[in-house]
Amino acid sequence: MAKKILDDVKAKVWPVYQPYLPKGDDEFSVMVRDYPERQGKYGRAALICLSNELFGGKPERAYLTAAAYQAGEDWILIHDDFHDESEERRHLPCLHQIYGEKHAVNAGDALHMIMWSMLRNNHQLLGETLARTLEDKIHETLLTTTKGQHVELNWIKNNCIGVTDDDYFYKVDIISGLYTIITPLQLGAIIAGASESDLQKIVKFAKPLGRAFQIRDDVLNLLEKKEYGKEAYGDIYEGKRTLMLTHAFINCTPSEQERVAEIYAKKRKEKTAGEVAYVVELMKKYDSIKYAQKFAEDYAKDALNIFDKEFSHLPATQAKQDLRTLIEYMAMRTE
Amino acid sequence: MAKKILDDVKAKVWPVYQPYLPKGDDEFSVMVRDYPERQGKYGRAALICLSNELFGGKPERAYLTAAAYQAGEDWILIHDDFHDESEERRHLPCLHQIYGEKHAVNAGDALHMIMWSMLRNNHQLLGETLARTLEDKIHETLLTTTKGQHVELNWIKNNCIGVTDDDYFYKVDIISGLYTIITPLQLGAIIAGASESDLQKIVKFAKPLGRAFQIRDDVLNLLEKKEYGKEAYGDIYEGKRTLMLTHAFINCTPSEQERVAEIYAKKRKEKTAGEVAYVVELMKKYDSIKYAQKFAEDYAKDALNIFDKEFSHLPATQAKQDLRTLIEYMAMRTE
Repeated sequence: MAKKILDDVKAKVWPVYQPYLPKGDDEFSVMVRDYPERQGKYGRAALICLSNELFGGKPERAYLTAAAYQAGEDWILIHDDFHDESEERRHLPCLHQIYGEKHAVNAGDALHMIMWSMLRNNHQLLGETLARTLEDKIHETLLTTTKGQHVELNWIKNNCIGVTDDDYFYKVDIISGLYTIITPLQLGAIIAGASESDLQKIVKFAKPLGRAFQIRDDVLNLLEKKEYGKEAYGDIYEGKRTLMLTHAFINCTPSEQERVAEIYAKKRKEKTAGEVAYVVELMKKYDSIKYAQKFAEDYAKDALNIFDKEFSHLPATQAKQDLRTLIEYMAMRTE
Repeated sequence: MAKKILDDVKAKVWPVYQPYLPKGDDEFSVMVRDYPERQGKYGRAALICLSNELFGGKPERAYLTAAAYQAGEDWILIHDDFHDESEERRHLPCLHQIYGEKHAVNAGDALHMIMWSMLRNNHQLLGETLARTLEDKIHETLLTTTKGQHVELNWIKNNCIGVTDDDYFYKVDIISGLYTIITPLQLGAIIAGASESDLQKIVKFAKPLGRAFQIRDDVLNLLEKKEYGKEAYGDIYEGKRTLMLTHAFINCTPSEQERVAEIYAKKRKEKTAGEVAYVVELMKKYDSIKYAQKFAEDYAKDALNIFDKEFSHLPATQAKQDLRTLIEYMAMRTE
């Protein structure tokens, strides 16, 4: 169900995105097109499009913004994959694994520029005032995300092993809450001309949704599933601080804590499969995965309840039903 | 003389730039402010401001564009210094040397966003059509620069030691010609409402100026001078392809060629001071520095002659005199 909704959005947004990408067969053009052509799920693009429709906007008014946000995602993923020393993205090797870190950063910069050039064309489509509001919102969100990224990089750089649940949620609220959920939904709502009160209602349910989404994502990373586009246990290799890690760390014995700290102090490439398995076993031993899943379930329920309550005044359109399906999928996804 | 002109521009543009930078004492904000606060020469900003005045524009209409271009320079320098594994920038350690490569790339991304946010405020200052023209020109230039950067990264990555003068000038025309000279001058001219014919005249003299400027920059890198904000011989450590290298390589013996190729195949940190000195000596032995300097002198003369001829119809204002002084300095600078 959710897959069809996402694919429908992709079929509308990709033809708007593609013409902005360099066309040549030279290495630079091929490299810049690489992540965009892998496409991903188009979850954020779908939130923009469906939110616009939910608030009564004409569908085609949201496609360019959705495409631009997608270009922004492609830039951010390229730079993040370099930051995290990740190996796989959307079932293929990460861009820096193919072309090297320097080239990859350069390709990300190109997509970043392309994102703004798309948003400038919103001025003709939506008028200057509205287009400008969207640009400012995206600027504010991405600058905040960059700061959140800095905080997370520092946890790894400084080997902060005792990250608390509060620290974790601070990062999640910025990166998954604001960037992945709140801003896309608000962008769609703004395009449709929704009220300030509706924009605030979005924040209410999108915050628990962002938390549920991120915890699910973290849990999925511990499973070996073909549908998941990244390598299994990548988060542990990359030293990511997750709810499972903080829970296991607080509950395990001092000697286990010492061993975990040693493993997390190692760089990605220095970690052995045995060491990573040790951390996974510890998370299982202390029921840390269940602990995290309980959080995810509670937040998912909260998000859906708030959505149903806050938007009960809106007509039961197809867009509303699709958005609810998508929210449910994001909050409870198993792939 | 040129220094006073540059400092005067800096005194006007920096107060416009500064309010856009993050203000906190947290590490992220401090890091993002770092390169902007080091300031550099403001050469590109000065070209924008003086070109605007040359064509009769009110000075204050150009400051925001100059400040935005400066923010763009700060982003590009941060990413370039990471690309080149450079050590010093504006007399201090490069940003990635202080905070690590990942943090530095992130700070560059923030300044990139800030650049576009400044350019959006041009809409109020200059009206939508003009502001949009400036944004599109900057987009086009920076995307081309990114591609030029890719070409240069590949020379180093693939150890292309036999780069020709033509290859060298291809890169120089993009990075030093277009990005450093042509676009800043055209931006100023566009703000002032100059004619399409004047924009084309700028290209005529700015191309040789870009070449003279870059060759001077390359030669300066071989001198140990306090005024120069980067480490001496940095270009050789970084494996940069220069006119001196291509000349020495073509003229030296096969065994010398082999040795040079070996040295250039090494990564920056693997090169010894003795190996770098060997390359410098070879450049001296084959008069490669003189060869390059002759090119620089010829291009400098060309640039000044074309400037005088093409813009003889413009009144002999202070701005015209200052711009000529600045052009002369950029073409013939010894620091």
